[in-house]
Amino acid sequence: MMELDFIRWLRGRLPDDARLRVGPGDDAAVLDVGRGLVVTTDMVTDGVDFHLERCDPRRAGRKALAVNLSDLAAMAAQPLAVVVSVALPRKGAAELARALVEGMIPLAQEFDVAFAGGDTNTWDGPLAISVTALGEVTEHGALLRSGAKPGDAIVVTGSFGGSILGKHFDFQPRIREALYLNANYRVRACIDVSDGLARDLSHMATASACGAVLDIEAVPIADAARELAVTSVGRTALDHALGDGEDFELLLAMSPEEAARVLADQPLDAPLARVGEFIAEPGFWRRTSDGKSQPLEPTGFEHRGEL
Amino acid sequence: MMELDFIRWLRGRLPDDARLRVGPGDDAAVLDVGRGLVVTTDMVTDGVDFHLERCDPRRAGRKALAVNLSDLAAMAAQPLAVVVSVALPRKGAAELARALVEGMIPLAQEFDVAFAGGDTNTWDGPLAISVTALGEVTEHGALLRSGAKPGDAIVVTGSFGGSILGKHFDFQPRIREALYLNANYRVRACIDVSDGLARDLSHMATASACGAVLDIEAVPIADAARELAVTSVGRTALDHALGDGEDFELLLAMSPEEAARVLADQPLDAPLARVGEFIAEPGFWRRTSDGKSQPLEPTGFEHRGEL
Repeated sequence: MMELDFIRWLRGRLPDDARLRVGPGDDAAVLDVGRGLVVTTDMVTDGVDFHLERCDPRRAGRKALAVNLSDLAAMAAQPLAVVVSVALPRKGAAELARALVEGMIPLAQEFDVAFAGGDTNTWDGPLAISVTALGEVTEHGALLRSGAKPGDAIVVTGSFGGSILGKHFDFQPRIREALYLNANYRVRACIDVSDGLARDLSHMATASACGAVLDIEAVPIADAARELAVTSVGRTALDHALGDGEDFELLLAMSPEEAARVLADQPLDAPLARVGEFIAEPGFWRRTSDGKSQPLEPTGFEHRGEL
Repeated sequence: MMELDFIRWLRGRLPDDARLRVGPGDDAAVLDVGRGLVVTTDMVTDGVDFHLERCDPRRAGRKALAVNLSDLAAMAAQPLAVVVSVALPRKGAAELARALVEGMIPLAQEFDVAFAGGDTNTWDGPLAISVTALGEVTEHGALLRSGAKPGDAIVVTGSFGGSILGKHFDFQPRIREALYLNANYRVRACIDVSDGLARDLSHMATASACGAVLDIEAVPIADAARELAVTSVGRTALDHALGDGEDFELLLAMSPEEAARVLADQPLDAPLARVGEFIAEPGFWRRTSDGKSQPLEPTGFEHRGEL
């Protein structure tokens, strides 16, 4: 829970700055440069976000870049450039640095991201990879977390849960999807699901001064969540879908009419689903088709701890 | 020596990108946004750039920001914003994160830098702090490493050596000095001295396809270098001045006429000195006032390892 506390503390310590259209606390900041310069930073570390002793370092490198592109997607920003700084274990540092970059290059090329520089450090600690991604606001504006209104539909891309089985490495940042939706539909708010569907929904609702009701039977459950549930103790596939995190899907707020339109259109390769609605009263609820509601625990992990 | 090898390898792996006015290899990159967006990233780590068990974490935080501002200075960029990502040891992580920011805030305010966001991570490793600084090119353009010409004077701010005694924490990034010089004099090339005077001079000369001659009797030796030399075995104060690094002074290339003008003016709070000249032939030399030259070893450490 350091995250929200830390943001609150930080905001109290910093003066307002006219150059910051969007400051700390959203998926990325927006600076008053050009049409709007979007900047986000995310660090991934050995032992938390990957385990170097049992993964190809190229996958760790790819993930470090992909999680940052996912934050640009959540703002509906057009990717521009990245810089990368790494703390490398001394042994095999040069080979590791190259493998990390090799893992990043295909993704950077796919999304037309310029590699603007970086900093390589060797030390006695484990591998840490920090990426800062820069993007530009399009003519359709940036999507914030804070724009949801009571009555808005909760719309998601893709499916949820069980990302630990592979998707947390191999996910596609939803850049194209976010740009397309923002250009062709009225989207009120957007966040990428990194901490878990329930938790990131609570983040958006809180930022928008709303509550939220999740229609749990409508939540698209990933095959990986069902697979995990077979062996996990006391957790259903739905529990995994709500709490696992690192799905890196988009969670959107749209008016009921716009949601109906986009669901009828299904314009993306990824399926879109309506999974609930925002409400005026604070609080988070899980609802079944018989109309019964129970409190929704915003479980999921905050290890990413974005400021 | 990973640095130059890595840059060379990286350049071979990356396609040219029209948005990169200046790509990896200078003090910072310049992106084609607005008048020119300058971006640089530098990570500092426990056990290499500071020792947390014997320094106030606020000094570590300040240093993480200051080294990045020094890279903006080296480009003569106007600071705009920073983002910060940290890997925090689990024990006392929240307090440590706040102390790091507390150390950054006065410097950020002094140089009018917006704090645009960040990412806090906890892990079982030591403290690593990655800062990305953004700045804007002024109407006078960006200063690169590569603009020195044979015959140009080598001009430096301040004095050199012994930064380990305190300056590596407490230095003032030469932002104001770089902006002033760039606005009022014709500066051909600029670098900040992080790896050591001899080594960074070799970086600039190599980037400019020149050689260089250092008039070693003209090198301003810091009191701290003399203090260190009293106890260091086999290293003179001059050796410290040439090799210690982390002085974060500016090293500039100027025509002999411009150098004479700025030295006569001495327009800065920091003293300016002429310490040698660039030459057409590759190679690095140390020259004494009797006219004798010896090879100059580009000693100094590359632990910063900028890409």
